[in-house]
Amino acid sequence: MLILGIDPGTAIMGYGLIKKEGYRLIPITYSCWRTSSDVPMPQRLKKLYRCMNELMHKYSPDVMAIEELFFNRNTTTALAVGQARGIALLSAAENDIRVFEYTPLQVKQAVVGYGKADKKQVQFMVKSLLSLKEDPKPDDTADALAIAICHAYSMGQSYGGLRK
Amino acid sequence: MLILGIDPGTAIMGYGLIKKEGYRLIPITYSCWRTSSDVPMPQRLKKLYRCMNELMHKYSPDVMAIEELFFNRNTTTALAVGQARGIALLSAAENDIRVFEYTPLQVKQAVVGYGKADKKQVQFMVKSLLSLKEDPKPDDTADALAIAICHAYSMGQSYGGLRK
Repeated sequence: MLILGIDPGTAIMGYGLIKKEGYRLIPITYSCWRTSSDVPMPQRLKKLYRCMNELMHKYSPDVMAIEELFFNRNTTTALAVGQARGIALLSAAENDIRVFEYTPLQVKQAVVGYGKADKKQVQFMVKSLLSLKEDPKPDDTADALAIAICHAYSMGQSYGGLRK
Repeated sequence: MLILGIDPGTAIMGYGLIKKEGYRLIPITYSCWRTSSDVPMPQRLKKLYRCMNELMHKYSPDVMAIEELFFNRNTTTALAVGQARGIALLSAAENDIRVFEYTPLQVKQAVVGYGKADKKQVQFMVKSLLSLKEDPKPDDTADALAIAICHAYSMGQSYGGLRK
């Protein structure tokens, strides 16, 4: 089972692809895509869409996991994140990949065991659970891996996630 | 000059295509696409993307006009609108169509001549300026036509709009 975690953003979009084999979690590829604010937004989204589709074609993940709507930031950020998130969801739909959504609380609980864990703790646990030699960076990449791990664990516990 | 106005939303996406011939504005096609909240979001976005692309292929608009970021609603709405907006911008980029953005204030000033005009006034002026027999409905369609008109007028005044 190949699980793709996505942390959407227009400036930085983090991705983390992991393989779940029984209880083992194996990192396959993880990094982030960046787009410059000097480039018009339509072209930035086009770049992200191309990158998403390339990843989909290359690895054929079984599912995609992405953060559920959040409410704690300002509307400008939400709109920008929404645009990038729309691109990620579209790519999943176009490639027939099921999407599961988790709240930040669910992700932290699954990965750290504590819903109010900070970024450092999430990063530490992601590194530890995937036996990485170095901290996954930037935060967007760590967060993408964290949500993929969250899905892997939720499946193990037969929660199954929310299909939206 | 064919101008496509878009009022993005995941439940209802309004569109309005007008032709500018000298000082004349001619409505070509206008309506909206709807998606059901019973359908998973990735599929809803896929439908909107298909509809956008079909319109682009059928009419080959010269430019697309869309509302600039706004700040007066809640983050949940902003994220949902952002997703639909991302799809519209992607479609424009994939079809090599330049995008111009206007604030709601600019649209109302261009169409009604008054930045605090209400929906009824905008609808009345859209109907009048395009010599429509009936009010364009729903609001999303009227708003899409309004932003297309805004671009037509801004061009006339050599503002040129913002390319983003």
